[in-house]
Amino acid sequence: MAAWGERLAGVRGVLLDISGVLYDGGEDGGSPIPGSVEAVARLKRSRLKVRFCTNESQKSRGNLVGLLRHLGFDISEGEVTAPAPAASLILKERGLRPHLLVHDGVRSEFDQNDTSNPNCVVIADAGEAFSYQNMNKAFQVLMELENPVLISLGKGRYYKETSGLMLDVGAYTKALEYACGVEAEVVGKPSPEYFRSALKEMAVEAHEAVMIGDDIVGDVGGAQRCGMRALQVRTGKFRPSDERHPEVKADGYVDNLAQAVDLLLQHADK
Amino acid sequence: MAAWGERLAGVRGVLLDISGVLYDGGEDGGSPIPGSVEAVARLKRSRLKVRFCTNESQKSRGNLVGLLRHLGFDISEGEVTAPAPAASLILKERGLRPHLLVHDGVRSEFDQNDTSNPNCVVIADAGEAFSYQNMNKAFQVLMELENPVLISLGKGRYYKETSGLMLDVGAYTKALEYACGVEAEVVGKPSPEYFRSALKEMAVEAHEAVMIGDDIVGDVGGAQRCGMRALQVRTGKFRPSDERHPEVKADGYVDNLAQAVDLLLQHADK
Repeated sequence: MAAWGERLAGVRGVLLDISGVLYDGGEDGGSPIPGSVEAVARLKRSRLKVRFCTNESQKSRGNLVGLLRHLGFDISEGEVTAPAPAASLILKERGLRPHLLVHDGVRSEFDQNDTSNPNCVVIADAGEAFSYQNMNKAFQVLMELENPVLISLGKGRYYKETSGLMLDVGAYTKALEYACGVEAEVVGKPSPEYFRSALKEMAVEAHEAVMIGDDIVGDVGGAQRCGMRALQVRTGKFRPSDERHPEVKADGYVDNLAQAVDLLLQHADK
Repeated sequence: MAAWGERLAGVRGVLLDISGVLYDGGEDGGSPIPGSVEAVARLKRSRLKVRFCTNESQKSRGNLVGLLRHLGFDISEGEVTAPAPAASLILKERGLRPHLLVHDGVRSEFDQNDTSNPNCVVIADAGEAFSYQNMNKAFQVLMELENPVLISLGKGRYYKETSGLMLDVGAYTKALEYACGVEAEVVGKPSPEYFRSALKEMAVEAHEAVMIGDDIVGDVGGAQRCGMRALQVRTGKFRPSDERHPEVKADGYVDNLAQAVDLLLQHADK
């Protein structure tokens, strides 16, 4: 372990994924991953800059932060990069009026967007709202557009809740892409623009930053393609086969966030 | 029109798609496409062999034929190649125990299959049964298998009902393929094995047969790859852009089945 820990030299900023790294979600609100509350606190007491970079798109940023604070985490809305507020801004800049295929919990993030006479579809992790009726409505909106625009908040395959693995937005985005013959624009990890916006808000260059996540493709691969280093935690949706992934190799694998923070405090910013 | 009609010379057998060619489905049972009832009757009175080759996987073959007979079509179960009975046979041959992500209307086709302790997933056009809960259950079954097997009854993108375009099984299959990192085995059009089984049941060689369908990829492209000729009807899910499809060009385009039969009776088997 110590051998690759040296790869963390020169790190000044840390991007933390939330689900599967800080906590596992669930119907009861979820539970913190052991050691993560303290690990975040230790990081924030250090000289390292910290930002949370999530693909959570089922809850508003406010509700997510409220839940995490309730679980004991030291976190505020201003420290979180989340796809729904980012998408809302992009829609306004481009004059897009979204049909929203989203969970009710995140709908408030689009209060400032005109949703009349839609000229695009925004798909998020809608959970139970991924009914056939709702999917079909989004499909029909796209098929009626001359130039169909589909914006997907992330492209995750699945995530882990306390009750087990759950299908994520990426799977449903693939369904609409195939049915309509379009390619979605991704707002969220692993989009390079998204990682860069999080780095900019932390005021750290890519080569000075490390991403810590449980998703070998979305977190680790995406961050590395932006010039960052990246660690995978063996919590959340991690599966042992991730360490033999044919295309992505993390700079290091750690048992959990607590171990990642141990290594960072030992090797980073030296 | 007459120019390409000569391409039908030597045709001895006709494969007919059902949905979008004979009738448009709908909540009320659907309605025949004008002229199709008579067109089927004329074909069956001719010297041409006729077989129905459908990807319908929401209804059992018996229920489908019952509905079509009620709409006035001369059709019997023995004349229909349908994916659910074909899949049921394949499952038995390979010792596969399916978890069924299907509509209740087709479940009876799998009465002879052992569904305990599943070692594969069969996905069909489940319609309203494509709930998040049902999709997630199928996903979890696949993720727990060491060698996940996903069998998809067709790979259609969408079909047309009287109320509009509806997402078909192919879209949901793509979702599971992406989430699980697997590739589905297709039982149905455009699988070459499926077309060949229909030709065999009709006792006609591919070069002597023509497929008539509303799906430029699944019907026309699939049949042509098997060495058959293929016509696209401008009914059902047909869209004008199909005639400029980048990869598939039908041997001819006709307004409806009635026009196709006019041409066949004029040019085929000469």
